Amino acid sequence: MITLIDIEAAAERLQGIAVATPLISSRPLDDLAGGKVLIKPECLQLTGSFKIRGAYNLMSRLTAEQAARGVVAWSSGNHAQGVAAAGSLLGIRTAIVMPEDSPVVKIERTRALGGETILYDRYTGDREAIARAIAAERGSELVPSYDHADIIAGQGTVGLELSRQAQEQGLALDQVLICCGGGGLSSGSAIAIKALFPDCDVYAVEPTDFDDTARSLQAGERVFNLASARSICDALQASTPGRMTFEINRKLLRGGLSVTDAEVGAAMRFAFSNLKLVVEPGGAVALAAALASKVDLRGKTTAVVLSGGNVDRALFSEIMRAEV
Amino acid sequence: MITLIDIEAAAERLQGIAVATPLISSRPLDDLAGGKVLIKPECLQLTGSFKIRGAYNLMSRLTAEQAARGVVAWSSGNHAQGVAAAGSLLGIRTAIVMPEDSPVVKIERTRALGGETILYDRYTGDREAIARAIAAERGSELVPSYDHADIIAGQGTVGLELSRQAQEQGLALDQVLICCGGGGLSSGSAIAIKALFPDCDVYAVEPTDFDDTARSLQAGERVFNLASARSICDALQASTPGRMTFEINRKLLRGGLSVTDAEVGAAMRFAFSNLKLVVEPGGAVALAAALASKVDLRGKTTAVVLSGGNVDRALFSEIMRAEV
Repeated sequence: MITLIDIEAAAERLQGIAVATPLISSRPLDDLAGGKVLIKPECLQLTGSFKIRGAYNLMSRLTAEQAARGVVAWSSGNHAQGVAAAGSLLGIRTAIVMPEDSPVVKIERTRALGGETILYDRYTGDREAIARAIAAERGSELVPSYDHADIIAGQGTVGLELSRQAQEQGLALDQVLICCGGGGLSSGSAIAIKALFPDCDVYAVEPTDFDDTARSLQAGERVFNLASARSICDALQASTPGRMTFEINRKLLRGGLSVTDAEVGAAMRFAFSNLKLVVEPGGAVALAAALASKVDLRGKTTAVVLSGGNVDRALFSEIMRAEV
Repeated sequence: MITLIDIEAAAERLQGIAVATPLISSRPLDDLAGGKVLIKPECLQLTGSFKIRGAYNLMSRLTAEQAARGVVAWSSGNHAQGVAAAGSLLGIRTAIVMPEDSPVVKIERTRALGGETILYDRYTGDREAIARAIAAERGSELVPSYDHADIIAGQGTVGLELSRQAQEQGLALDQVLICCGGGGLSSGSAIAIKALFPDCDVYAVEPTDFDDTARSLQAGERVFNLASARSICDALQASTPGRMTFEINRKLLRGGLSVTDAEVGAAMRFAFSNLKLVVEPGGAVALAAALASKVDLRGKTTAVVLSGGNVDRALFSEIMRAEV
């Protein structure tokens, strides 16, 4: 079982490594919400997303012998950069299996951080099988993107940090909205948030066609998305919740929310105009849920995690030009 | 004479009003620089630029009688929003004379904050004369955009804050790059920076054709820009340095640097890709100077102020699409 103690230990390992991103307010957002909304901009994190937290937490705990044989991961791009950056900080060789249609910026950045990239077809290939084969051949450790206690504890430092920052501002959190792919960020954060604010409602937010966590929470068991599902949110395309993350989320989450691509675009434009932050589609789903009133914000204190900002300039410009 | 004490007093007035923007690092930037670069993102400030600091500092010191008669200001947009926001916080009626070609977002935001906007032609009208006429008619106080002790002290809190944040990070500042229009931000910040780091070199950064401060520093007296000067940086188009600000800057600044529109665009793209921050053209000149190696960054600790992020989506998209 992962507890607050594991997350506090992860936070200590990340001290001086990960950025303690601020918890910021926006008057236009508070006015719109009719309540207090706190933004946790993990797009300002090292590598442009929260993923360095879990990757570094896991990789810093490898034995010298394990570290010497390198690590292998699979990722649509943000975990890839987190693993590559952690490898560069820890002196561990990294190889990452990535979909060939990942945003160019994510592939380039992973390489720039020293990661070896292996590309595959998102809709026909099996990234996990490819990664496992490479790991077996090299004797490397796998660094899963969510279903591992050290990853969950590392990502949970986002929830711990934002809870403590809210306390420092004298605010009690009524609800927290967190994006959800495989569930590492939401489950880890939920552990910390519920430890500090037991009455707080934590929601996982997903793209409409990738709402496996929302449906799994309702069904009481892990269900899958259709293979035909598509979304602008390249970072949130897990096919089903993780085993470990779902066990945590089913106990701690209030529920799941989902947002359309159009709502995501509107949230990205809101972040541009009002927060002056670059948020990628997958990083904007929680804000999209808030702006589209998927939960009641009136008179409440709501924290919203912006999980990443790694988006190609061309796509960003296209979304910025769309009519409101 | 404006001293550190005035700036500390301004910082106290702004406590709980202005955002204490973080002082952030970026590994890609440090790597490029071969030194330590610290970013002060005032684009994350209330109203999207540092201008609320000076406006609030001045307006909070008006007598009840003065406050009751309202204030008048002139501004290309960021000071306008700062004045309007301060008015809304303090319950003071505000009227702002703005160029008719100001970014739409700046005009709209000023109105949304309750400011009355009076538009004029930037190249043929005299904004100061228009503002003075309105002020005389209404008995209103003027809120100058830079040449006033309370404005300079208020903007100086940027320099004070970043100096203290550097100290907290255990870093001594070797140099600071600050954008410069009329000189309020650079002069106020220089007072604070030089008080805390006497050996630090402070530079004013301007657009190529609006390098009046750089040339004035060289000439030893205030010189003017050509009326034909044009720049993508709408926020930095003062025709000559302020009297008060120049008196301070001639004593405290190491010198002036200038950057082209192309260098500004490159800096905005760098901020997008690496910092995940939306920076407006005028807010990006100091970063542009750093990226274009206008000063030597190697082995030094350099702070760079990103002064604002109020840019229209259309212009931003155009700049994002430009080839590197």
